[in-house]
Formats: sequence, structure tokens, C-alpha cells
Amino acid sequence: MLIECIPNVSEGRRPEVVTVFADAIRAVPGVHLLDFSSDPSHNRSVFTLVGDAAGVEAAVLQLFERALAAIDLRNHKGEHPRLGAVDVVPFVPIEGVTMADCVALSKRVGAAVAERFHVPVFLYEEAASTPARRNLEDIRRGEFEGLPAKMSAREWAPDFGPAVPHPSAGATVIGARMPLIAYNINLATDRLDVAKKIAAAIRHSSGGFRFVKAAGFALENRGLVQVSMNLTNYEKTPIFRVFEVVKREAARYGVQVLESEIVGLIPSAALHAAAEHYLQIEGFKADQVLENKLRQAE
Amino acid sequence: MLIECIPNVSEGRRPEVVTVFADAIRAVPGVHLLDFSSDPSHNRSVFTLVGDAAGVEAAVLQLFERALAAIDLRNHKGEHPRLGAVDVVPFVPIEGVTMADCVALSKRVGAAVAERFHVPVFLYEEAASTPARRNLEDIRRGEFEGLPAKMSAREWAPDFGPAVPHPSAGATVIGARMPLIAYNINLATDRLDVAKKIAAAIRHSSGGFRFVKAAGFALENRGLVQVSMNLTNYEKTPIFRVFEVVKREAARYGVQVLESEIVGLIPSAALHAAAEHYLQIEGFKADQVLENKLRQAE
Repeated sequence: MLIECIPNVSEGRRPEVVTVFADAIRAVPGVHLLDFSSDPSHNRSVFTLVGDAAGVEAAVLQLFERALAAIDLRNHKGEHPRLGAVDVVPFVPIEGVTMADCVALSKRVGAAVAERFHVPVFLYEEAASTPARRNLEDIRRGEFEGLPAKMSAREWAPDFGPAVPHPSAGATVIGARMPLIAYNINLATDRLDVAKKIAAAIRHSSGGFRFVKAAGFALENRGLVQVSMNLTNYEKTPIFRVFEVVKREAARYGVQVLESEIVGLIPSAALHAAAEHYLQIEGFKADQVLENKLRQAE
Repeated sequence: MLIECIPNVSEGRRPEVVTVFADAIRAVPGVHLLDFSSDPSHNRSVFTLVGDAAGVEAAVLQLFERALAAIDLRNHKGEHPRLGAVDVVPFVPIEGVTMADCVALSKRVGAAVAERFHVPVFLYEEAASTPARRNLEDIRRGEFEGLPAKMSAREWAPDFGPAVPHPSAGATVIGARMPLIAYNINLATDRLDVAKKIAAAIRHSSGGFRFVKAAGFALENRGLVQVSMNLTNYEKTPIFRVFEVVKREAARYGVQVLESEIVGLIPSAALHAAAEHYLQIEGFKADQVLENKLRQAE
């Protein structure tokens, strides 16, 4: 079982403090800290860790303990909107684990955070208790400073914990979502209007695929344009389908796809799905992948 | 670093003995026994294990110790050709390791086997010392019973160890090769001649791709035909290229590809290469795959 967790913490200017957080995560058995980075202008750090359910739960609780001791949001300034010392904690199913498992984990961790640290917890995305709480932006609107007023309204009672914000740590957003894939397709043209029209055709907000966010950009130093995308659920809106539609829409303007690129990390299964599609592979099982079989044996 | 090793041992009729071999492999730290199976009519067992170089080396030496104590080829009968108690030991690079590393490992293990167990060792495939020793079948021709005569010829002096066979354990073949992928493409026709013509077009022996073995078969209960393949180097002859040529050749006879299938295990990278090809992904690095990054962190 492999769950990814990407906690966002409201501290990005004191490396010695961020190192304490990282060390606390690393010390949890069965958990691997893959990456962490701090943005001083955002005054925020992002950690990427993986492990089984018990491991990532223990790591998140360790992180809360250290963050609450070190961060006071009453003195915190930064460009990035934030609601809490530990601002947002998404759990992401990677392998041998379902979205339902990650939703259950979100609730378990939310209840533990509320009980042990007296921080109010809002569940979001797949774990949200109402549609109004699915989007992080809606929960976070008003930020830390607006929390007392926001939480006094009945519809913003937290899912776990006290009805008022924690004095120094605010509130926390915990939930479950699919891995996000940052995917760009570069077109062999400098016509920005073509990239923008294709982006509009494929993105959810203007009638396209349910799990695609997209925009058109010029890559001026290369004389190209780019359809830049976030794919928010590669199982339900797979990469190959998006790629084929972009290629088809581009052809309608006499434009060819030059190349595509994956930005950052991608789960292996998202690439396997493309191979299965194009090679017309039937009856393939994840445990035929040698590396998956190996992980099961460990 | 991940190396696969698939030792073939000349014992498939005494499960209690095969279990001792499996337990000896499992007891080596850092080595995972993914699978093992015995064939009583072949009187032979095949083990699939993975680990780093030091781990698989230790596991193979453990296996030799147990196999030499339990197997006497002078009393061994079975349908499968065999030369030794531990008959053949291929090392296969999977991830974070080169073929050159696996060739070096083959020589190290070969020297150790010769020194500790006084068994003559022939290196094969990528580790072969001469072209005449690349193919396992050429080394094994004559089998255990023919070894004394064969080894008396100068050209069959072993790469390591004594110039005569071990009395009860014969000789051993050790080497390095790429993972073998068993891949079938089913055609939406019952015309066996079409499958046979396509198999002839793509296989190395009749002018096709360097690393393809292929044959055409009828799947009579489904009313289909199949191009059945072994891909012996997916890096140099990738799956997607073979698939596209089969599809193109089939079209020449008015026949469509119905589906394809992977039989058994496949390294993740072989599927990633197909995704990269069809999605035209540029600049992709293996450590962008989340699971690879995880393994590096372990």
C-alpha cells in the first residue's frame, strides 16, 4: 500500500525550523520523505512523503506537534493565502489503496488532530462533507485573519474540533484527492489564439473534460505556443484521451503537435494506462509490472 | 539499484528440497524472492529474485551450497536439457543499473562459484567470452552426460574453475541479459497464413527486428490467430515499434489488430517507453516516476 501526502506548512523563512519538521517526518518508520521545498516570499513549505496509512498518519501528527510549537500565525506574513500553521494536508492514493481508503484516513487524522491539538479541521475534496467544501479556495477564503468571523456562521462549523480557531494555529484543511499531473503540449506554431482555443475546448470550466484545467501560453523564446494543463484525475480523464483531442483540435487549424512534457512527478500507473491504450493491451493487471510485484513482496 | 536473477535448478520433483532452496534465498537480507515454480516432468525449478548486486550474489551462492548438497545429476532424469545442478543463472538489469554492471556481476559470481564449489562455469549472453558462447543452447548441447567429452576440447575450456566437470553437479552457465517480455498480438481473422507471414516479417531469424522471436498460431476456440513473440531487448527493439509494424503488415492483408497481451511480468520502463512514444513526451527522466523516486529514497 502506497499513499502520498503533501502537507503545506506556513513557514518558509526559517530553514532551521523547516529542517526540524523534515527530520520529524523522516524519523517515522515506514515513511519516506521524497522532497521538501520552502518559498520565502510565500513563507510556506511543502513536504512530499509516502508510506502506508499508519505511517503517513503518524508523520502528519508529528508534523502538527512540531509546527504548532514553532509557528504563530498572528505574526505570519507571506504572499500565499493560508488558514493554519499546518495549512492543508492532502492524502493521495498511489498503489494498492483506494480513494475510499484515503477518505477514511482523512477523517481519522482529522479527528486525531482535533482531539490532540484542539485545532478545528475542515475536510475537503473527496473527503468533503458538503459540496461547498470541496474546493480548498472556498474554505480558505478570508484566511487566518477572517476565521473568527467565518466560523461564527453555522455553515462554517468545522468537521472536527472546536467551533473557534486555535489562537496561534488557526484551522487546518485535510482531505483526499487524486494525484495531480502537470502536463504541457507544445504546438509547432506561434499562433497564441490556437493554443487558447484548444485550452478552452478541453478544460472543464468551458465545456471540456471533467478533470482538466488548461490555459494557452506563448513560449516566446522558442517561437512556439503551449497548451498548459493540470490533470486532476488521470483515471477518469486519462492523459492519452486529452492528448488525442488536442492533436485533433490542432489539426483543425493546420497545426501539428511538436511534443509534450510531464512537469514534476507522475504515478507510474498514469503512463501504463497510455501504453495499454495505444498497444491495445487487454487483461493487463498491475501486478504484472515487475516493480509492483516487488513492492508487494516487501 | 534493482537486479533480477532467475536461477534454474535441476530439481522439480521433491517439493521439500525446493522449499529448502527457496528458504535459503529468502533468508538473504535485501533480497526478495518474487516467485518460484517447479515442473516435475522437466524435473526443474525456476526462482525469480530481485535485489542489489551484493544481495543477489549472496543469494546465488547460498543456492549453490544447498543445491550441490541435495542434487546428484548422475541420478537425474527430466525432459528439459540440463548441464548442471544449478543449471543456468541469468542476471537482468531492471533499474538504476547497467548491463555492464550485470556482466561484471556475472564474472564475480562465476569466479566465486568456481573457487568455493569447484564447479566449472561458462559465461553466456552479454557476459560471453566468445560469440560461440552467447547462446545457452550451444553451451548446453550434449548435456551433463556429454560434458567430459565436450570439455576435453580446447574450445570448451570453462571461463572459471576446473577443466573437468564436477562429478555430481556438472557445470553451470552464468551471464547477463535484458529482461524477456512475452508479448502476443491477436488479429481479428482466422487466417493462420496471415499470422505466420507477419511473424516471419518481424522476427530476427527471417530478416525482422534484431530482438524479436515470433511465430504465428491459431486460437481455435476464439476463431482468431495470434502473432506470439518474445522481445529479448525492449530498449533496442521497443514494444511500440513492433506493435506498429504488426498493425501495418496486418492492414496489408485487410486484417485489423484486435488486441495485444503481456504474458507474465514486464519492467515498468518498457511500458513507460510506449507512453513516451505515443504521447510525444520530450525530456522525460525516470526519476519523474513517483515510484522510482520512492525506491531511490529507500
